[in-house]
Amino acid sequence: MSIAETCRNVKSAAIKLAACSTEIKNSALAKIAQELAAHKEEIFRANQEDLRRSEAENIPMPLLKRLKFDESKLDDVISGINSLIRLEDPVGRTLLSTELDDGLELYRVTCPVGAIGVIFESRPDALVQISTLCLKSGNGVLLKGGSEAIETNRALARIIISASEAAGIPKGWCSLLETRYEIKEMLKQDEYIDLIIPRGSNEFVRYIMDNTKIPVMGHADGICHCYVDSSADPEMALRIVIDSKTQYVAVCNALETLLVHRDIAKTFLPMLKKAADEKQVELLGCSETAAVIDVSPATEDDWKTEYLDYKLSVRVVGSLEEAIDHINTYGSGHTDAIVTNDRGNAARFMSLVDSGSVFWNCSTRFNDGYRYGLGAEVGISTGKLHARGPVGLDGLVIYKYLLIGNGHIVADYAEKRRTFTHRKLNRDFPLH
Amino acid sequence: MSIAETCRNVKSAAIKLAACSTEIKNSALAKIAQELAAHKEEIFRANQEDLRRSEAENIPMPLLKRLKFDESKLDDVISGINSLIRLEDPVGRTLLSTELDDGLELYRVTCPVGAIGVIFESRPDALVQISTLCLKSGNGVLLKGGSEAIETNRALARIIISASEAAGIPKGWCSLLETRYEIKEMLKQDEYIDLIIPRGSNEFVRYIMDNTKIPVMGHADGICHCYVDSSADPEMALRIVIDSKTQYVAVCNALETLLVHRDIAKTFLPMLKKAADEKQVELLGCSETAAVIDVSPATEDDWKTEYLDYKLSVRVVGSLEEAIDHINTYGSGHTDAIVTNDRGNAARFMSLVDSGSVFWNCSTRFNDGYRYGLGAEVGISTGKLHARGPVGLDGLVIYKYLLIGNGHIVADYAEKRRTFTHRKLNRDFPLH
Repeated sequence: MSIAETCRNVKSAAIKLAACSTEIKNSALAKIAQELAAHKEEIFRANQEDLRRSEAENIPMPLLKRLKFDESKLDDVISGINSLIRLEDPVGRTLLSTELDDGLELYRVTCPVGAIGVIFESRPDALVQISTLCLKSGNGVLLKGGSEAIETNRALARIIISASEAAGIPKGWCSLLETRYEIKEMLKQDEYIDLIIPRGSNEFVRYIMDNTKIPVMGHADGICHCYVDSSADPEMALRIVIDSKTQYVAVCNALETLLVHRDIAKTFLPMLKKAADEKQVELLGCSETAAVIDVSPATEDDWKTEYLDYKLSVRVVGSLEEAIDHINTYGSGHTDAIVTNDRGNAARFMSLVDSGSVFWNCSTRFNDGYRYGLGAEVGISTGKLHARGPVGLDGLVIYKYLLIGNGHIVADYAEKRRTFTHRKLNRDFPLH
Repeated sequence: MSIAETCRNVKSAAIKLAACSTEIKNSALAKIAQELAAHKEEIFRANQEDLRRSEAENIPMPLLKRLKFDESKLDDVISGINSLIRLEDPVGRTLLSTELDDGLELYRVTCPVGAIGVIFESRPDALVQISTLCLKSGNGVLLKGGSEAIETNRALARIIISASEAAGIPKGWCSLLETRYEIKEMLKQDEYIDLIIPRGSNEFVRYIMDNTKIPVMGHADGICHCYVDSSADPEMALRIVIDSKTQYVAVCNALETLLVHRDIAKTFLPMLKKAADEKQVELLGCSETAAVIDVSPATEDDWKTEYLDYKLSVRVVGSLEEAIDHINTYGSGHTDAIVTNDRGNAARFMSLVDSGSVFWNCSTRFNDGYRYGLGAEVGISTGKLHARGPVGLDGLVIYKYLLIGNGHIVADYAEKRRTFTHRKLNRDFPLH
């Protein structure tokens, strides 16, 4: 089957999946959880094969760790599926209901986006998480995982597809792609694929964004900032900066640039230097920073760089406005925080920083679907449309307008024989 | 000033405009209405100039009609502004509030999209409508109107910009573009422009969609369908079909293809033929249609064509499913209607037709922001993300996540010293 045909099949199944009841979707999820547990030996064997091959290929240790799918990972994905079952169905919710005229009723009702292509990194547990989120939200899905995990992904996808289809989910709703060529082909299928969600390196996400007409939801850079205001508590600021930078350096919500108000620089920077040295964080700074502590000079490029490493660029600013300007100029709209005891400054920062997540007196590392209490996430979006920040079930649906009449025609209104009432109904769409 | 600089200025003003209060925005709208009235002679003079030049250039009559901006058009736009003032501010609404832990509170709050480029047709009243919708929703805007209306647009933009800036709206929030070259340049400014809304011909919208990395919201085709089910009331079906086709043929929500169930074809098609002849609607039909009434043969291309004319393609189908398949295959996701007395068939049609607006027993022509009671619209979207159907104020905002802590760090949760509470707060964001 060609990729175009696969995409058409996923889209056509997605249309039927959009009409599946919550009961069918939840029982399919339960069946998936049950079958994953029943076939665990098969999954672990496939994973062993991936691990053996990847070790032989000298894949770096952190990647190997993420590739591992064992009893504990299985428990995690199964408990993930169980919490997904308990979440409210995002499909079929009436967002608005208006009587346009006697017997003419308009409803805005949520529905799935359609067919979604998700390209994700080496963790095979991501395959389970993403496919089950798509199922619950009624979307068809094309999955492409990391090639290191090919055998594990095959085993997982086979189980998920057969369990869900046995439970009544339309055949063809989920399909596994395995090569880069297949991704390239999928990116051309704007007739069938409604959304692409890429997760992976900066360059990879940019490549996807630049090579498809299909809307892309995700983020390339995560250049996150923390601004230490003149009225910050220096101890609190230090705790937040160190957590934001070092709690996990390889992730998109880790801190990359620190902005410090001039009035607190002489107090705060020496404290920072000491803590950074202890944590082996390399500091790069502007000339004003260098006048207070020992740092390598930061260049223009540093403000635009996502280090994903034990490295932090530091800039002294003269005002809250200068900090906001720096963030809106060099930031990536991902996560930016202010540390201050001044409520007015916090309010100003939160309303003027143009990012998906803006924090006051807490670590940038909190930006995450699970921590936000959204349930699992398919990714974090830095776009300005549809969904921003961590994207959970809510971000995988859209709405349609449904209008019920009784022979109503527009000529009657255009020729003033009738007029619109536009009365709020506060009623659910009646045809479910 | 280069177009890149203009776009950067609009974006930078937009960020400040996002923080403007409802009071400032509403008083700016009132000031605009007042100044438009005060400068009406200037506007009418500019419009006379456009009309004279366009007449000399032999511009077709319907275009000339749309170009006209007189006392009655002025009254319309002013009453439009007054209703916009009365609409709820879409910015700053708290959509979700969750306590993540003691003293750590998450809010999802609506905010403007940012800087929007709107390209619209010859009607100068569209300039007023679009710019005031953007102002109320806190967005900066680049406007490009039809070249026929250049003098009227200049006069209107000058008044709107000076009135709004005098009322405290950040300088530079609104800018008028005048040439195709400027549009081309704007389409490259994905660093500053967050959204493009094109209104105009199919080819033009497609050109825009194919030539920018900026998200585009709108529709190219409006290939709308009406399906007359076997259990339809034929009289009602005829009224709806004739209204959908002929009430205004040159618009995107006009009917282009009629699908008729085989069991009602012999009754319904002769009625249709008679009414179509009276209204001078040319019918093109499939072979089954041609076996019942006199029609030119419809080809595969007819199912894909938006006539925007007194022309209708007709196809006989054997089932509800065949009708739904036809619509999902050839339709453009704009507006599709079913006429039936069978509630189950209506429910099935409404849930399986993958379009922004799906109607039961009423005319496709109802798809419109004003008729829907949304207030004015910036356009109708057939995309699957962000906003679908008529896009009003709601479609011009997105949200950001705002998190307020008190020194909270992620390490405490990762190392199990603290756990998340994830308690619903039902509280508005407190820093406004």
